[in-house]
Amino acid sequence: MTDELLLSRSDLDFLLFDWLKVDLLNQRPRFSGQDRFDYNSVLNVYESLAKDLFAPHNKKNDSNEPMFDGEKVTVNPEVSVALSAFSDAGLMSAAFPTEWNGMSLPSTVERAGMAYLLAANTGTAGYAFLTIANANLLISHGEKDKVAPYVNAMSEGKCFGTMCLSEPQAGSSLADIRTRAVPTDDGRYRLFGNKMWISAGDHDISENILHLVLAKIPDENGQIPAGVQGISLFAVPRKILNGDGQPSERNDVVLAGINHKMGNRGTVNCVLNFGEGRYKPEGEAGALGDIIGEPGKGLAYMFHMMNEARISVGLTAAALGYTGYLHALDYSKTRLQSRPRGDRNLNSPQIPIIQHADVRRMLLAQKSYASGALALCLYAARLVDDIHSVENEEERHNLNALLDLLTPVVKSWSSEWGLVANDLAIQVHGGYGYTREYNVEQFYRDNRLNPIHEGTFGIQALDLLGRKTRINDGLSIRLLTEKISETVQKGLLIDKLSHHAHKLDAAWQDILQVTKKLHDLDNVEMQLANAANYLEAFGHLVVGWLWLDQAVTIHETIEGSSDSDFLNGKLAACDYFFGWEMPKISSWLAVLDPVETTPLNMPEQWF
Amino acid sequence: MTDELLLSRSDLDFLLFDWLKVDLLNQRPRFSGQDRFDYNSVLNVYESLAKDLFAPHNKKNDSNEPMFDGEKVTVNPEVSVALSAFSDAGLMSAAFPTEWNGMSLPSTVERAGMAYLLAANTGTAGYAFLTIANANLLISHGEKDKVAPYVNAMSEGKCFGTMCLSEPQAGSSLADIRTRAVPTDDGRYRLFGNKMWISAGDHDISENILHLVLAKIPDENGQIPAGVQGISLFAVPRKILNGDGQPSERNDVVLAGINHKMGNRGTVNCVLNFGEGRYKPEGEAGALGDIIGEPGKGLAYMFHMMNEARISVGLTAAALGYTGYLHALDYSKTRLQSRPRGDRNLNSPQIPIIQHADVRRMLLAQKSYASGALALCLYAARLVDDIHSVENEEERHNLNALLDLLTPVVKSWSSEWGLVANDLAIQVHGGYGYTREYNVEQFYRDNRLNPIHEGTFGIQALDLLGRKTRINDGLSIRLLTEKISETVQKGLLIDKLSHHAHKLDAAWQDILQVTKKLHDLDNVEMQLANAANYLEAFGHLVVGWLWLDQAVTIHETIEGSSDSDFLNGKLAACDYFFGWEMPKISSWLAVLDPVETTPLNMPEQWF
Repeated sequence: MTDELLLSRSDLDFLLFDWLKVDLLNQRPRFSGQDRFDYNSVLNVYESLAKDLFAPHNKKNDSNEPMFDGEKVTVNPEVSVALSAFSDAGLMSAAFPTEWNGMSLPSTVERAGMAYLLAANTGTAGYAFLTIANANLLISHGEKDKVAPYVNAMSEGKCFGTMCLSEPQAGSSLADIRTRAVPTDDGRYRLFGNKMWISAGDHDISENILHLVLAKIPDENGQIPAGVQGISLFAVPRKILNGDGQPSERNDVVLAGINHKMGNRGTVNCVLNFGEGRYKPEGEAGALGDIIGEPGKGLAYMFHMMNEARISVGLTAAALGYTGYLHALDYSKTRLQSRPRGDRNLNSPQIPIIQHADVRRMLLAQKSYASGALALCLYAARLVDDIHSVENEEERHNLNALLDLLTPVVKSWSSEWGLVANDLAIQVHGGYGYTREYNVEQFYRDNRLNPIHEGTFGIQALDLLGRKTRINDGLSIRLLTEKISETVQKGLLIDKLSHHAHKLDAAWQDILQVTKKLHDLDNVEMQLANAANYLEAFGHLVVGWLWLDQAVTIHETIEGSSDSDFLNGKLAACDYFFGWEMPKISSWLAVLDPVETTPLNMPEQWF
Repeated sequence: MTDELLLSRSDLDFLLFDWLKVDLLNQRPRFSGQDRFDYNSVLNVYESLAKDLFAPHNKKNDSNEPMFDGEKVTVNPEVSVALSAFSDAGLMSAAFPTEWNGMSLPSTVERAGMAYLLAANTGTAGYAFLTIANANLLISHGEKDKVAPYVNAMSEGKCFGTMCLSEPQAGSSLADIRTRAVPTDDGRYRLFGNKMWISAGDHDISENILHLVLAKIPDENGQIPAGVQGISLFAVPRKILNGDGQPSERNDVVLAGINHKMGNRGTVNCVLNFGEGRYKPEGEAGALGDIIGEPGKGLAYMFHMMNEARISVGLTAAALGYTGYLHALDYSKTRLQSRPRGDRNLNSPQIPIIQHADVRRMLLAQKSYASGALALCLYAARLVDDIHSVENEEERHNLNALLDLLTPVVKSWSSEWGLVANDLAIQVHGGYGYTREYNVEQFYRDNRLNPIHEGTFGIQALDLLGRKTRINDGLSIRLLTEKISETVQKGLLIDKLSHHAHKLDAAWQDILQVTKKLHDLDNVEMQLANAANYLEAFGHLVVGWLWLDQAVTIHETIEGSSDSDFLNGKLAACDYFFGWEMPKISSWLAVLDPVETTPLNMPEQWF
């Protein structure tokens, strides 16, 4: 039963085709010749894989987590089977450009498809996500002949990827990494150091693993430079490649320990030691690797991957929220409990709990969060596709500016509210939802990771308020203002939406005003002290905008929409969001203007 | 290290003695002869037990959950050791009246002590809590000679208790229970039926278990009556007592299966079958039991226990929130990461994360939730002590009315915000918090139960808005209004608090107005549709009131308070609550006046 409760295909279709109009992308060379039929076909493949090969071992990934015997890591055999089928179907390289033997599938469609896999089994899907992001970085920033053996092996599912950023003393603060990359005589590097929180860092799924590693090249005195400027990026394979580009000798990178997580247990996560000398590739200790791009630009390149990863985190959270919602909806239709309020007949039968208003409130909240987050993630993916395909440079610059602004929102809002959706899915199930005999508690545990990794909520808030709202002299904010205004103008012309349009406009003006006041403060501590609430307010505003924009699409463009249960449900989710969620914005802004200073001024010893 | 991070003794001392003035209870006969020294001594015992015998196996309770081999349930041996020490110290009967060989300890002090055990090990403490609540019900409603063997055995830790309410088809809807109690010729009953979600339902910790079971007595045609009026309460032991009051023959109640939970795994939770015939006590199938009190009044008696249990649920959530907070605080002082904002020196050392404003925000939020919930629970316990000890009947009536009103808040607010505190404790720990190598993720999983059991959040909301705010012609609300006004009047006279006092007063007036408007609606569906948000708003208001009331106590009565880090920290938590939390009230009220009807009107097929 439950493996069919992954996503709503109607919703995906609406988002992709009616709202984001991905089928119009084929007017541009990169996507020429593609059509809606193709996209539907490929989505069917994702959906089938999700149901047949990913969902069935989701619980097993949770109860049988990866094991490390001191030598090697073993994961459930079903993980390999699922991922092999995934790469055999050509999905690892689905969105790679054709010159890299990809299908050049729009990112929007790829991510919609990946959402099925994430909803079915976040742990197993994680390996594929990391590998795709890894390959995308290599394609963008590597020298083609150097990286081709890896990218090709990745397409075939023979090599998987990781991103190695954090170290025990450097989590959020990447400037403080200490991993050293010492140049060799033949233009390569030997890496020494410890990396923490490495997802998919070691396993037995693929022949090889490619680690993309941030490290610093020591100066002539052997000192590593301080700060982020000294960070370079290296490709360090688990097994070094021989002359034929095939994995051969074991590199000097070993797993030092596995992290035992609350959830998301299917994806192994570990500490990796580089250059501890257990293996001596080409006769010497030190993990052999190649630099990607120029020295000192490692963090910039890694942000390529990290921004993609941040959208993926948002998508993961959205998918988990969505499947939890569908599980709760299903349960609420079959679980009988109590009677309609006011029914005094003690002998009348009990009713399905969906007939209780409070259960419908919890379902609508989940729907508005999960579907809202999915819309947000796909909107971001659509920007990626535009960035890849528009011809005009200024337009691309603007699209990048808008995506930069939205990325912390995509990552954080989806993580936060996807998790709230999972919390409500448990609540709808009552005691049953708290047991491992049902599925929803795992979704909740799996999803709790998402507000933490790839930049915590607090880091995203600083990025949004301290950086993204300011760069390019506020260009990003101006572009978003234009987009919101367009939606507001359209909404004002539609009777049933004009009230929402006014509310959205007023809330956005409030945020703009607060933004300006904060930017005008000279004291940077004051400016950023309550950034978390700024992100909360900003995120709700953005999602409110996208809900209204979808509602406008329904009213403007879809004939007979009032007869459609599905579309009426979308409109109701929009109404819910404006009625129940948008009022929260002013409560978050309350601490920003003027800046409430209790946390800022709290001396440590008062705690 | 971490087993000392349970609760703040300074905070407990403040709450008990400075704020709630429990030491003045000794002016009343029930508590005469007791003093602060006694209370401190007994709190020391709880604290030692918590550190030495409860905390050390908290993780083991989680990783080694109770096992059922088809015949019997096995729990970790440390559970018995801890509980034996607990009852040997006289703590099972600590608050029993002296005529029941108790210490007649005030409930306020007992609960403060129990909070240590809950913070240390919710799973193990759960057995004690249920047993105490069970004994309290027997003492209040049982015939002394019938129940004395059980109560005495409970005092000695030889018999543990359960409450058996839910059935598979009757969770929130107790009117629909089907368990039958068939009278025997000698005035006893034989019970037949299935009970669900029975915590401590079977185990090997004690010689005997007493189940307090809701069941219906069939009419002359063998039909069980519909509705709650037909519910009676029965005492059904696991082993029936022989003539000497000693447990002997096995009763016909057997465990049918264990629930595998997300958290709170230390307390076994199971399905019990009564009267399936595996055992034949006194030669016949059917679980032998005695009725407690009068037929048809079972639910009223059970509410005695349930109201106590609801305060216990709140206390559990508060204790878990508190220990999570202390863990996060400890971590934040030692984890070095990043530099002060504006420090451009790349070589300066990293700082403890508590020096980042956003981390202090998360700590203050946790402090305001956890300590706020603890204050709320102890305030309710203080009302219980007053109810037990005042001489004037009208006063007792009023105290009961106030406690009735606050009980859903105590249960729900603490559960909801204690969990948010645990969520933030994970967030402060970053990736480490998501691993089972640290403690905070378990607190979060353990705490997720609390918004579900003993009446879900939604049920509490209906109870508050539909019942508690209306009974006795609004007496409860009038009494609360008086209490709030007293605090407001005092707060207005203190410079640093007058702003908060105004805010509290305005928010309470808003809630009163909304309450009246809702009560005046003829449509009961409309009235209660958004009860959840009413409970949200009401809960925050009540806790805001108690924070202000504590701040008033500090300003009014404690000399040199401005020199005390601890008291300044309390005042800062109050400031935080008024600055960051109170604004949420209006966002919740936004859907109540006028009633936002999207969830109410949402047809099922639109989802």
